[in-house]
Amino acid sequence: MDALDRLIDLALDEDLGAAGDVTTAALVPASARGRAELLAKERLVLAGAEAFARVFQRLEATAAVAFRYPDGARVDAGTVVASVSASLRTLLVGERTALNILQRVCGIATLAAQAAEAVRGTKCQVLDTRKTSPGMRALSKLAVRAGGAANHRFGLSDGVLIKDNHLAAVGGDVAEALRRARAQAPRLVKVEIEVTSLAQLEAAVSGGADVVLLDNMADADVAEAVRRIAGRVQVEVSGGVTLERLPTLAALGVDFVSMGALTHSARAMDLSLELLPQP
Amino acid sequence: MDALDRLIDLALDEDLGAAGDVTTAALVPASARGRAELLAKERLVLAGAEAFARVFQRLEATAAVAFRYPDGARVDAGTVVASVSASLRTLLVGERTALNILQRVCGIATLAAQAAEAVRGTKCQVLDTRKTSPGMRALSKLAVRAGGAANHRFGLSDGVLIKDNHLAAVGGDVAEALRRARAQAPRLVKVEIEVTSLAQLEAAVSGGADVVLLDNMADADVAEAVRRIAGRVQVEVSGGVTLERLPTLAALGVDFVSMGALTHSARAMDLSLELLPQP
Amino acid sequence: MDALDRLIDLALDEDLGAAGDVTTAALVPASARGRAELLAKERLVLAGAEAFARVFQRLEATAAVAFRYPDGARVDAGTVVASVSASLRTLLVGERTALNILQRVCGIATLAAQAAEAVRGTKCQVLDTRKTSPGMRALSKLAVRAGGAANHRFGLSDGVLIKDNHLAAVGGDVAEALRRARAQAPRLVKVEIEVTSLAQLEAAVSGGADVVLLDNMADADVAEAVRRIAGRVQVEVSGGVTLERLPTLAALGVDFVSMGALTHSARAMDLSLELLPQP
Amino acid sequence: MDALDRLIDLALDEDLGAAGDVTTAALVPASARGRAELLAKERLVLAGAEAFARVFQRLEATAAVAFRYPDGARVDAGTVVASVSASLRTLLVGERTALNILQRVCGIATLAAQAAEAVRGTKCQVLDTRKTSPGMRALSKLAVRAGGAANHRFGLSDGVLIKDNHLAAVGGDVAEALRRARAQAPRLVKVEIEVTSLAQLEAAVSGGADVVLLDNMADADVAEAVRRIAGRVQVEVSGGVTLERLPTLAALGVDFVSMGALTHSARAMDLSLELLPQP
Amino acid sequence: MDALDRLIDLALDEDLGAAGDVTTAALVPASARGRAELLAKERLVLAGAEAFARVFQRLEATAAVAFRYPDGARVDAGTVVASVSASLRTLLVGERTALNILQRVCGIATLAAQAAEAVRGTKCQVLDTRKTSPGMRALSKLAVRAGGAANHRFGLSDGVLIKDNHLAAVGGDVAEALRRARAQAPRLVKVEIEVTSLAQLEAAVSGGADVVLLDNMADADVAEAVRRIAGRVQVEVSGGVTLERLPTLAALGVDFVSMGALTHSARAMDLSLELLPQP
Amino acid sequence: MDALDRLIDLALDEDLGAAGDVTTAALVPASARGRAELLAKERLVLAGAEAFARVFQRLEATAAVAFRYPDGARVDAGTVVASVSASLRTLLVGERTALNILQRVCGIATLAAQAAEAVRGTKCQVLDTRKTSPGMRALSKLAVRAGGAANHRFGLSDGVLIKDNHLAAVGGDVAEALRRARAQAPRLVKVEIEVTSLAQLEAAVSGGADVVLLDNMADADVAEAVRRIAGRVQVEVSGGVTLERLPTLAALGVDFVSMGALTHSARAMDLSLELLPQP
Repeated sequence: MDALDRLIDLALDEDLGAAGDVTTAALVPASARGRAELLAKERLVLAGAEAFARVFQRLEATAAVAFRYPDGARVDAGTVVASVSASLRTLLVGERTALNILQRVCGIATLAAQAAEAVRGTKCQVLDTRKTSPGMRALSKLAVRAGGAANHRFGLSDGVLIKDNHLAAVGGDVAEALRRARAQAPRLVKVEIEVTSLAQLEAAVSGGADVVLLDNMADADVAEAVRRIAGRVQVEVSGGVTLERLPTLAALGVDFVSMGALTHSARAMDLSLELLPQP
Repeated sequence: MDALDRLIDLALDEDLGAAGDVTTAALVPASARGRAELLAKERLVLAGAEAFARVFQRLEATAAVAFRYPDGARVDAGTVVASVSASLRTLLVGERTALNILQRVCGIATLAAQAAEAVRGTKCQVLDTRKTSPGMRALSKLAVRAGGAANHRFGLSDGVLIKDNHLAAVGGDVAEALRRARAQAPRLVKVEIEVTSLAQLEAAVSGGADVVLLDNMADADVAEAVRRIAGRVQVEVSGGVTLERLPTLAALGVDFVSMGALTHSARAMDLSLELLPQP
Repeated sequence: MDALDRLIDLALDEDLGAAGDVTTAALVPASARGRAELLAKERLVLAGAEAFARVFQRLEATAAVAFRYPDGARVDAGTVVASVSASLRTLLVGERTALNILQRVCGIATLAAQAAEAVRGTKCQVLDTRKTSPGMRALSKLAVRAGGAANHRFGLSDGVLIKDNHLAAVGGDVAEALRRARAQAPRLVKVEIEVTSLAQLEAAVSGGADVVLLDNMADADVAEAVRRIAGRVQVEVSGGVTLERLPTLAALGVDFVSMGALTHSARAMDLSLELLPQP
Repeated sequence: MDALDRLIDLALDEDLGAAGDVTTAALVPASARGRAELLAKERLVLAGAEAFARVFQRLEATAAVAFRYPDGARVDAGTVVASVSASLRTLLVGERTALNILQRVCGIATLAAQAAEAVRGTKCQVLDTRKTSPGMRALSKLAVRAGGAANHRFGLSDGVLIKDNHLAAVGGDVAEALRRARAQAPRLVKVEIEVTSLAQLEAAVSGGADVVLLDNMADADVAEAVRRIAGRVQVEVSGGVTLERLPTLAALGVDFVSMGALTHSARAMDLSLELLPQP
Repeated sequence: MDALDRLIDLALDEDLGAAGDVTTAALVPASARGRAELLAKERLVLAGAEAFARVFQRLEATAAVAFRYPDGARVDAGTVVASVSASLRTLLVGERTALNILQRVCGIATLAAQAAEAVRGTKCQVLDTRKTSPGMRALSKLAVRAGGAANHRFGLSDGVLIKDNHLAAVGGDVAEALRRARAQAPRLVKVEIEVTSLAQLEAAVSGGADVVLLDNMADADVAEAVRRIAGRVQVEVSGGVTLERLPTLAALGVDFVSMGALTHSARAMDLSLELLPQP
Repeated sequence: MDALDRLIDLALDEDLGAAGDVTTAALVPASARGRAELLAKERLVLAGAEAFARVFQRLEATAAVAFRYPDGARVDAGTVVASVSASLRTLLVGERTALNILQRVCGIATLAAQAAEAVRGTKCQVLDTRKTSPGMRALSKLAVRAGGAANHRFGLSDGVLIKDNHLAAVGGDVAEALRRARAQAPRLVKVEIEVTSLAQLEAAVSGGADVVLLDNMADADVAEAVRRIAGRVQVEVSGGVTLERLPTLAALGVDFVSMGALTHSARAMDLSLELLPQP
C-alpha cells in the first residue's frame, strides 16, 4: 500500500474508531446522494488535489472529485476550487479528514511560493528539509514543488549528507569521511558535507564533496566561503533562514538555501466544503 | 498495531525509504553506542514523551529514553528534558522523526495551556476539535489534556453531533433528528446538536439534546441563548474563537468553548537532540 | 482496511491456507460461471447481508449478490433469501466462509427479536454487551439492532462504565471516581456506574452519573433502587437475565436490561447455499 | 503475523476503538499493578490457554499468565485455572477479550469430549468440520483435539474433498473427477469423495478414492455401504449427526463421523476473571 | 491480501522507495499513454502470466495485459508473448518488477518441462521440493505444473513428512512415529517417511506409511527397496537427482523423483518488454 | 515492518499455511530444545547472516544464532559457519526458509567476488543492477558489497537514469531531458543518461549529465567514447557483460561496469543445517 493510502487510512481509522460515524448512520439514509463544493476562503496556492480526492475514494471507490485548477495554481478567496459527488454519507464522513490534509498542504505550497518569489531572478534555489509532519513527507515535498521551490533529499536514502555527528564517528577526518561515503553509497547519490568553519572548507572541496553545506554561518562567513569555493562545488546555506534573509543570501551567490519553516511552520489555509442543496 | 506505532512506522518508512540511511551506514560502525540529551530551546509545556521514546524503540527495542519531566510540565529554555541511550546509528536515524513528532505535540500543549489560563476560575472549559494533523489525533488530544484544556469527541464514534447537514437529511426537523439519534446510537454517547438561530434553540432543548452547540454566533446572541437555556442542557460555543475572546465567552456562562486552532495552528516548539561526546 | 474486511480476510486466509482450494482448482475450470441461491432452512430474522456479499466480493470484485429481503426481515423456512452470481470457483471457495458468518449473525438477530418482543409496550429496552465473538463486534451489534433490541457501548471508548474494580482504584470513593471520569473523558460520552448495594446508590446519583447499573440484584432490590432513583438518572439491570425474566424487569420500570446471551449464546441459524444447475 | 495474533488484534481494536478505554484511563493510574485469577464457574474441559495469555501479552509484553492445568484437562466448577499478573490497566483492558475467546474455545473442547466419549472403545473417530467461527479455525481445531476428538481438513488446501458440485463440473463422471484430482493435487493430500447413492459407491472405490463420504444417509444405507466397501477405503459419515446417534454409527463400523455442531453449536463456558485485592 | 499481491507489493516497494521513480516523474507526463510488447528472446515454456499482469494492475487497476499464449505453452525465440497497454508511467515503473518475476517463473517451467520429458512414458513423476525463492512458493509450484512435472507438498501443512530429525524425537521408533502422525494430523493428509536404510524399510511399510522416501540412495539400493516394497506403498527418491539420472530412476519403478534443482537452480529466461512508438 | 521482516514473514506464511507444520506438531514435544550447525558444503563467500538469524527469531524471539565468520568472509567446504540454539520445533520449522534465503545470498556474494577479482588493480568497479529476485533487493545489494563489488541504484528513487524510453517522451532532446531531470529531482541524486550512439555523447556530457551509460556497445565504440569524454563525466558500460569480458572493459578505462548476472544468475550455494544429537 502506498504511503498516501497508509496516511489516509490512518486518519480515517482514528476518526471513525471501530463504531463509525454514529451521527450520520442514525440520520442519513445509505441511499442519499450528495454534492459539495470546495471553497477557498483566502488567497492561496493549491496543492494536494489528489490526496483530497483519495480520501473520498477510499470511502467510496466511485466518488467523483473534479478540481478546476491544477496543483500550483494561485486562487483567490471565494474561489470554488473543486466539486465532489458521492453518497451523502461519504461526504459527511470524509469531509474533515480531507480538509485536514488539504489545508496543511496548501499552506506549505503558499509559503513555498513566497520563498521562491524572494529569490526570483537569481540562480539560488530555496529547498525544503526533512522537518515534515509525520506521514506527510511526500505531500509536503509535492507542495514545495507546487509553490515553485525545490526539494532537498526526500529522506535518508537518496543522498549522503555528512553532519558533524557523522564526522565525529571517523575522528573528525573529512577526507576519510568522504572516502567512506563514496565507497559505500550507491553510485548515483551525491555526497554533501556540512562544514562548521572555513578551516574545514578546503578539505571538503578537495576531498570530493559534491555539495558543501554552510550551517548557521553569518552572512560575512558565507560570502567568504563562496569566494574560496570559487564554483568548484555547489554551496548550500541553512540555519536561521527567514523570508526576509533570502534575498541577501541569494545575492551572495549560494546555490541553495534550505528552510525548515517551509514544511514545519506553514499556516493551515482556510478552505471549506460546502454541501449543495439536494436538487 | 496501535495508531501510534502505525504513525511512527509510516514516518520512519518515508524517511528511510527502501535503502535506509546511506550516510550513517557508510560512516558509523554498527557497534558504536551513543548518548544524547533532548534540549528545550524555548519555554514550553511538555507532551508526547512516550511517542518520542517509541520512535527510538521501534528502531532498537532496548533503546533507553528517560524523561526528567512528565507530560504537562512547564520547562524553561535551556532545560535538558530527557536523555537517550542507544546505538549511535539508532540515535542518528531516529533523531529527525522523533523531533518532528515531539515539536508538534509540545506546540499543541503549550497553546492549550494558554487557552486554559484564559478561562481559569470560571466553569468554562476549552475544548479541542477534530482539526488535527492526519495520524496525530491521539497525540493531539493528549497534548490538549497535558496543557490543561479538555477533549471534545475523539472522533465520529464517541458522541453524536448533529450539524445542519445532518438536519437537512431529515427535512430540518429538530425533534425527529434527536429522536433518530437516540434510537440508533449506542446508549452511552451523548447527543449534541448545532443550532444556527435562537428559533431552533427551544426545539433542541425540549427534544432531549444533552448539549447545544452555538456556532458562529455573536456574543450578544450567545448571551441570549444562555439565558433561554437556563441550565437545562450544556452549552458549547464554536467558531471564530481566539485566545483574546475566551474570557468574554467564559463570562457569558457557557460550559464549553471549542477552538480548532489548538490543534491546527499551534506552532512547532524548538527542541533539539544533542549528541554527547563519547567518553 | 475496515474491520469487516479484516475479519473476512482472516477467515478466507485460514480456510485457503497458502495453497488454496486444491479440489476446486483440480476440477472446476477457471472460466465456469455459476449461480446459487441462499436458502433459509428455518424461520429466522435476517441480518448480515452486506457481510455475506462481501465474502464473495473479496474473492471476485464483480460477484453479484442480490438480497430479496433487508436486514431485519422475518423470513420463513424455505425462503430463498438471496441469489449469488459469480465464477463457479468463487461460489465454491466462498460458500463456507460466507455461511459461517451469516448463520451466526442471523442467530443473534433472531434471539434479539425474541428479547425485544418480551418487553414490547414498555419503556424498557434490551441491550447487548461486549460479550461478542472476537472480530464480530460490529456484526453482532448490527444484528441486535436488526432484531429490534438496542446497543450498549460499542467498546471501551464510547462510554464510561465504572465497575467495582475501577472504584477500588480510587479507594472506593464514588464521588471521586465520577469526578475523575468527568474530568478526563471526552465531553460527549456518558458516565455509567455499577452499584453493588443500595448504600452506594445515592452517592452515584448525586455524584453526577448519567446511568446507574444494578448488577446481579434480586428483583426486590431492583424495585427499591428504581423507587429511590425516582427518575433522576437512567437505570440499567444486568446479570442473570433470561428471556423469561425480561417482562418482570420491564414492569419494574428500569430503562435498560443488558443480556450477554444475545451475542454469546445465540444458536447458529440453518441456511444453505444451493448451486443452480448450469442452464 | 500469525492468525492468532491477527484475531486478537482485531478483537482488541474493535473493543478499544481509536480512543482506548476511557474509563480505565480516567480512573486507574498507569503505574498500578494487579493480579487476577481465572475461575471456572462450571465443569469444563480446558483449551485455549495460549490464546488467553496472548491477549494480555499483546497489551503488555511481560504480562505473566500461569495456567495450573494443561489444555485437555477436566476441571470442576470453582477451580482456579490460572493466574495473571500485569499492570492493572492491562488486566482491565484485556479481560473481556481474553474471556470472549476462552469461553468459546473451552465450550468446543467440552462438547468434543462428550462426543469422543460416545464412541470410546470403537475404531470410530469423531471429526470436526470447517463450520467454525470466522478467525477461530485453528483455535477450534485445537479445542477439538483437546477434547479427544480429531480433526478433519484444516481448510481447503490440506485434502481433496469432491462434493456433488465439483462432480457436476466434470459431468458427473466419478472416475474422471478422481483422475483429475490425483493429477493436480499435491502428492501428499488424500482424496475423499462424497457419494449420494450406493450406485456411485463402487465407482468411487475403484476410482482410487482414499476416503468415501456418506452424506445424509440413513443408518441402513450406511450399513450397506460399509458392507460393500469391505475395508478397501476409509468411510466417513456426515449430516444429521447428534451425540445420541454417535454410538449407532460407530457400531456400524464407519471410520469417521463428522459433526458440524462441535464447532458451531458449542455453548460458551462460564469462566470469570477475579481481580485480587492489592496486598 | 493474497501471497502474490504481498510479493508484488514488496517488490514494488523496494524498487520505488518512498520517493518513487524520480526519472519518470521528471520526464514523462502523467497523461501519456503507452503500449508495449513482451518478447521472448529465447525458446522457453511460458508460466506466470497472471503475476506479470498483476504487477501493472497494482500500479494502475485498468492496465490491460493480453497474453497470446497460455501458461504451459512452448514459444520460440522472437515470439511476441503478450501486449500491455497502460499509462506510459505505469509501463516504465512496472517493467523491471514484472520481468524480474516472469523470467524466474518461465525458467522453472522450462526446466520442469525438460525433467518431465526425461521420464515420459513411465509411471514415474518428477516432483518439486520446498527449495523455492522466498515469497515465490505458489509461483514456483505453478511453473512446475505448467512444465508438466508435479507438485510435492506445498508447505509444511499439507502432508506429513517424517525425516530422521523427527524420528530422533521419538527415540528412532518408526512405528511410534507413524502412530503419532496418524493420531495428530488432519485426516486427509498422507504420511510419508524417510528411510535411510533397508533395515528401516519394513517398519515403515508395515507401520502404515502412505509413501516411503528413499533419500540419497544409490541406484542399486533403490532397486532393492522397490523390490521389497512390492507395490504396497508409493516410493519417492530424492537427493542427487539430475536430468541425466532421471531415466534410470524411472526405469527402476519408483513412483516419484523429487528435484530441488527445479526451483532453486533454474536459469532466468531472457524476455524483454519493448515499448511501441506512440502512434 | 522492514522489508526483510516482510520477506521472511511471506516465506514463513507460504511454508506454514494456516495449519502449520503438522509433522513437527505431531512428533516433537513443544518443550524439546535443540542445537544445530550451519555447514558450508562448498567454498563460498558468506553473506546474509542477519537474515538467516532473523528467520529463527521471527519464530522464537530468543533463538540464539552465532556466526563464526562475518559477511564477506571466504569459507571452505566443510566449514561450520554458525550455530543455532532454539526449541527443536523452531529449528525444524525454520530450517528450510532460512536456508532458502542464505543459499541465494551467498551465491550472489560468491559471484560478486569473482567479478571484483576480475577488475582488481584498475579503477573500474563492477556494479549490480535492479534485476533482483522480488523481495530480495536489499539482501542482494548487501551480498554484492560483501563480495567486493559495488551497488548501482538501490531502486528508482535514489538516482536519475534516463533511458531511451524516457528520452522519447521529450522528443529525443537530450538537453531538454537533462534540464527537466535537474529541475524536478531531489538535489542530491545524480543524473545518468544512456547513450546509444557516439552522436548523442557530446550532448549528454555538455548537458550536464553526471554519468554516461554506454549500453550494448562493442569494445571499440566504448574505447572511442571514453576517449571523447576525456574524464569530464563518469562512464558506465552495461549489456552483454561476462566475467571473461570484465578485464577488457576495465582496461578501456571505464569507471563502472554493471552486470545483471550478479543478482539474477548466481547459483545457489550448498549449505545445510545439521542438527546435533541431544546431549
